[in-house]
Amino acid sequence: MPVPSHRVGAYHVRMRLCFIGDSYVTGTGDETCQGWAGRLCALEGQAGHDLTLYNLGIRGQTSHDIALRWQGEALARLHGRNDGGIVLSFGANDAVADAAGQPRLALQDSLHATERILRVARTRWPTLMIGPPPVGQPGSDRRTRVLEQAMAALCSQAGVPFLSVWAPLLDSAAWCGGIAQGDGLHPGGAGYAVLARLVQGWPAWRDLMAAPP
Amino acid sequence: MPVPSHRVGAYHVRMRLCFIGDSYVTGTGDETCQGWAGRLCALEGQAGHDLTLYNLGIRGQTSHDIALRWQGEALARLHGRNDGGIVLSFGANDAVADAAGQPRLALQDSLHATERILRVARTRWPTLMIGPPPVGQPGSDRRTRVLEQAMAALCSQAGVPFLSVWAPLLDSAAWCGGIAQGDGLHPGGAGYAVLARLVQGWPAWRDLMAAPP
Repeated sequence: MPVPSHRVGAYHVRMRLCFIGDSYVTGTGDETCQGWAGRLCALEGQAGHDLTLYNLGIRGQTSHDIALRWQGEALARLHGRNDGGIVLSFGANDAVADAAGQPRLALQDSLHATERILRVARTRWPTLMIGPPPVGQPGSDRRTRVLEQAMAALCSQAGVPFLSVWAPLLDSAAWCGGIAQGDGLHPGGAGYAVLARLVQGWPAWRDLMAAPP
Repeated sequence: MPVPSHRVGAYHVRMRLCFIGDSYVTGTGDETCQGWAGRLCALEGQAGHDLTLYNLGIRGQTSHDIALRWQGEALARLHGRNDGGIVLSFGANDAVADAAGQPRLALQDSLHATERILRVARTRWPTLMIGPPPVGQPGSDRRTRVLEQAMAALCSQAGVPFLSVWAPLLDSAAWCGGIAQGDGLHPGGAGYAVLARLVQGWPAWRDLMAAPP
């Protein structure tokens, strides 16, 4: 994984990060419009890091949709720079049932799309992946959980750090209660704050925020 | 200008808005990572409107850079929907001097790029334009001011509402002081909050947030 070379001061990182995914990356339902990505970058700003946040979540998109457009959008923001990074998070829409009761994307198609994204991203930029969250729909959540575990295996093979947020979000009243009190699919700001803290404390994220030795 | 047809309740608008521009749209320097676009959508959320914010600001981009990529990014987010909208704001980077002391983009090239964007955007989506702000650099600010006034005329011809924020931001201690205390080009959150309030109170924006009669 390329190490960002543009650092500010002894322990402060300056990076431009593309957060690529679906409505959970957009932060749908967050009353501050920050989402977990904005909350995470704001927390790191308080710690002295200078992060430019490019929020490239698009509501409703599956892994396949994202595979088609992520690279052009990342290149428009990061091409020619040495301070870029990629944070991926998607999958929940793949598992949603269509009118015929079938998932919008079959498991193998989800994994194929994810593998294509990982393969390109990791050779160009420091890349991290956050697993899809539970969204309070038993049928699709069951499929998303299977996908999430397969994504973890795929990331392990590709050498991309993967953070599962499934268990801690299922245990989080702010996440699950926020969904129940919200639109039934998305939490409010308190739920996204929990997710931001999970990423903030993740060793692979902390490595990204650490000055080189 | 097409009127968004997807409304929630009597006076609440549900829209997906692409904010397209440069680092001032990104919200560079805002310690909350909201920028004016996030602050504006959060304010409207408090008023009951359900806005999805797609922040498509890219640091350093000129009008020409934006003309090359805005449409693909907007289509990825709004294609096939009837609740989309476009908010444009750029120009400050066009006026920055290159190594030879010339602006990165000549006035006519800026206006040509802007006209291309306006022509396509206004036929597909409700479209608004916010003028570029002063950024505390006398030389480039003088050129940006000329460009800003020419953009206003262009928008008037194209039937796209244009908001000049030049005078109120020059008068704003939060904007100008924030730039001086920040990186010398971008304000902090208090400055972006001033800009958000200017847009919030703009009659053309209020029209977008108004239910149809």
